[in-house]
Amino acid sequence: MAPTLPSKRLTLSNDLPLDSGQVLPRVEIAYETYGELAADKGNAVLICHALTGDQYVASSHPITGKPGWWERMVGPGKVVDTDRFHVICANVIGSCMGSTGPASEASDCKPYGMRFPVITIRDMVRGLIGLLDGLGIERLHTVIGGSMGGMQALSLAANWPDRAARVLAIATTARHSAQNIAFHEVGRQAIMADPNWRGGDYYGGSTPDAGLAVARMAAHITYLSEEGLTEKFGRRLQDRPDGTKGTKSFGFDADFQVESYLRYQGSGFTQRFDANSYLYITRAMDYFDLAEEHGGKLADAFAGHGLTSVNGKGARFCVISFDSDWLYPTAESRHIVHALNAAGAPVSFVELSAPFGHDSFLLDVPALDRVMKGFIDG
Amino acid sequence: MAPTLPSKRLTLSNDLPLDSGQVLPRVEIAYETYGELAADKGNAVLICHALTGDQYVASSHPITGKPGWWERMVGPGKVVDTDRFHVICANVIGSCMGSTGPASEASDCKPYGMRFPVITIRDMVRGLIGLLDGLGIERLHTVIGGSMGGMQALSLAANWPDRAARVLAIATTARHSAQNIAFHEVGRQAIMADPNWRGGDYYGGSTPDAGLAVARMAAHITYLSEEGLTEKFGRRLQDRPDGTKGTKSFGFDADFQVESYLRYQGSGFTQRFDANSYLYITRAMDYFDLAEEHGGKLADAFAGHGLTSVNGKGARFCVISFDSDWLYPTAESRHIVHALNAAGAPVSFVELSAPFGHDSFLLDVPALDRVMKGFIDG
Repeated sequence: MAPTLPSKRLTLSNDLPLDSGQVLPRVEIAYETYGELAADKGNAVLICHALTGDQYVASSHPITGKPGWWERMVGPGKVVDTDRFHVICANVIGSCMGSTGPASEASDCKPYGMRFPVITIRDMVRGLIGLLDGLGIERLHTVIGGSMGGMQALSLAANWPDRAARVLAIATTARHSAQNIAFHEVGRQAIMADPNWRGGDYYGGSTPDAGLAVARMAAHITYLSEEGLTEKFGRRLQDRPDGTKGTKSFGFDADFQVESYLRYQGSGFTQRFDANSYLYITRAMDYFDLAEEHGGKLADAFAGHGLTSVNGKGARFCVISFDSDWLYPTAESRHIVHALNAAGAPVSFVELSAPFGHDSFLLDVPALDRVMKGFIDG
Repeated sequence: MAPTLPSKRLTLSNDLPLDSGQVLPRVEIAYETYGELAADKGNAVLICHALTGDQYVASSHPITGKPGWWERMVGPGKVVDTDRFHVICANVIGSCMGSTGPASEASDCKPYGMRFPVITIRDMVRGLIGLLDGLGIERLHTVIGGSMGGMQALSLAANWPDRAARVLAIATTARHSAQNIAFHEVGRQAIMADPNWRGGDYYGGSTPDAGLAVARMAAHITYLSEEGLTEKFGRRLQDRPDGTKGTKSFGFDADFQVESYLRYQGSGFTQRFDANSYLYITRAMDYFDLAEEHGGKLADAFAGHGLTSVNGKGARFCVISFDSDWLYPTAESRHIVHALNAAGAPVSFVELSAPFGHDSFLLDVPALDRVMKGFIDG
C-alpha cells in the first residue's frame, strides 16, 4: 500500500500512456508547493527530484523529520525565492512518497509489486506535465533538476519545448553510461538476492532491507568523490562501543569510520524508501538516452529551442557540472551543451569546482547559488 | 573443509604468529613451481597473487579449467622465463585454494569459519617467508606482485629486507584509501546479508552465493575503467533469449550487455571462491597501511634498502602504475616512490598508458612486458 503522507495530491484526468506501450490508469501525483502562484501563472518553478528524492524540497520529511532536501536553495529570500516564485515539487511516478508506484494498489486492490509497468524518465515527465495541466500552468518560469532531476528537466525541454522558459540542468547526463548502468545493476541484484524481496511481493510482510541497504551503500560511494571521502574519513578508526579510542578490532565490526558511515547510510535509507521503487527508478535512469529517443542525434532532441523554432517559445538553458563528480562527469554536461549549441539553443555552461563529488549540487557550494540565481533572475 | 586440490603443499614447521597477537597453528601453504631451481638457489622468483587469485599462475585452474592467471607473462621464453627462473606462486593464508583459511579445519576438526583469526597482509607474507624457509631459499632473485600481490611484495621488502634482490610492485598501493575500504565494505555487507552465510558457518550446506556474487560485481566495476566499459559495452543491448535482436525488454532481465557481463562475473566467481575467504582477505587489504606499521612514515618502512643499509643486501625496486587505474591510481604509486627516494633506495617508476583500468596488469599491455623484462633481467 502506498503510504498515506501529508501532501497535496492530484489524480490525473487521463490514463498515462507509457513509452513501453502500456498505459497506467488512475495516476496520482503527490506534490508540494511553496510561495504563491501569480495571477498570470507566470512565476511557477518546477523542481524535479533525484533518484531517492521526494516532493519535500523545502519542508520537513514526514518520515525522517529531516529538513527538506534543498532548503538551503529554496525558501523566502533564497536562491529560488518563494517570496517571488511559486515552487512546485512532485514525487515522480514509480517512487514511494505518495505518487503512483509499485507499492500502490492495482485494479485488484493489491499492491502492483512487479506488475507495475517499467517506466522511463519521459514517463515521469508525462506525469509532471499532467500535474501542470491539472494546475493550469501552461509555461513554467523555470524547470530545475539535479542528477535524475536534470534528466527530467532535459526530457521536458526535449519533448514539451514550449512548457518552460528556462531549463536548469545540474550534475546530470543525457544518457546513462555503461559504468552508471553497472552500478545500478549491482544494487538491483542486491535487492533481488534478498529472500525478503520475494519477487517484489513483500508488502505487508518483511521488507528486503538488507538488500536495499547494500544497494544504497554501493550507490552512495558513487555520489562522493575519492578526495571527499579521504578528507572526511581517511583511514580514521571508530571509537569502540566500550569507549576504547579507535583501534583495529581484528574482527568484522565497523572499524573504520567510513564503514560505519556507509552502514548508517544503508540502514537509514531502508526506513524511507521502497525497494521496488529503487528497482523501477534505477531502470528508468539506465534506459535514459535522450539522443536515442530523438533518432540518435542529441541536437535533434533540442530542435524546439533553436532561434528559428516554435514562435520563439523555446527555452534558455543553463548547464552546470562539478569537477569532482565522477558519476556524471563534466564531459557529459559538455556533450549536452554541444548538442544545444548545434541546435542553436541559447545555453550557458559552467563547471564548478567543489570537493563533494556528485552530491555537490545538494551541499554548500556558494558558486552554485550565484550561478543559479543569475540564471533564474536573468 | 578446505578443498583437496592438486598442488604442492608445505606445512610450516612453526606456528605462525599474527599481527593480531593470535597464533595460527599447523599452517599449510599450497603452492606451485615452474622451472628448475639452480644449484645456488639464486634464480627463485616469487609471484604474489591478488585478492581472488591463486597459485595457478602459469597452469590450468583445477576448478575452472581456465589457463593460469598470468600465463601471458610466465612460462618458457616469456617475460618471467621459466627456462631461466624457478617461479614460485603460493596461495595466501586466508584464501581457499589449499592454504590454511577459514574453510580449513580447526583443532576441533570442524571448519574455522569466523573463528579463523583476522589476518593482515604482513601475516600473509609471514606465511610466504615460512614457505621460502621450508624450501631453503634465502634470497629471491625477484618478488613480483600486482594489486594485493604488490602489497605483499612491498610488505616483504619492508619487513624482510634481505630476502629479495628485486621488488616489482604493479598497480598497487601502500595503504587502502577510504574509497577502497568503502567498496570492500559493500561486498562484505552483501555476503553477510545473505541468509546462507549463517555467521560464516555454512560449510557442508548452502553457500552464500547470491551475496558473494553481488560483492564480486561491485568489486569488478572498480577493476575496469569507465572508458574501458564504454568501449567494451557502451549502451549496447543484449540479444534476447528468443533470438530477437537487442531491444529493451521493459523488464528486469539483463537488457544491457554490461548487465549480462556483470551477472556472469558474479555467478562464475562463486564457483571458485569461498565467501569467508573474501571477507578475510578484503579485511587484510583494508588494514594495510605500510607507513602505520613503521611508525607513521612510509620512508621508514624502506630503511633497509638505503645505500648505507644492511651489508648491501637491500633490494632494487620497480613500481608500475596504469593511467586508467582508478582503484589504485598513479598518485598511490608516486607516494611509494617518493618514500623509496627518501629512504635512498634504488627505484625506477613508470606510469603506463592502458585502457583497461586496474586489470591492466593482467591484460595485453606490451609496454608492461618490456618494463618488467628490463627490470628482471637488469
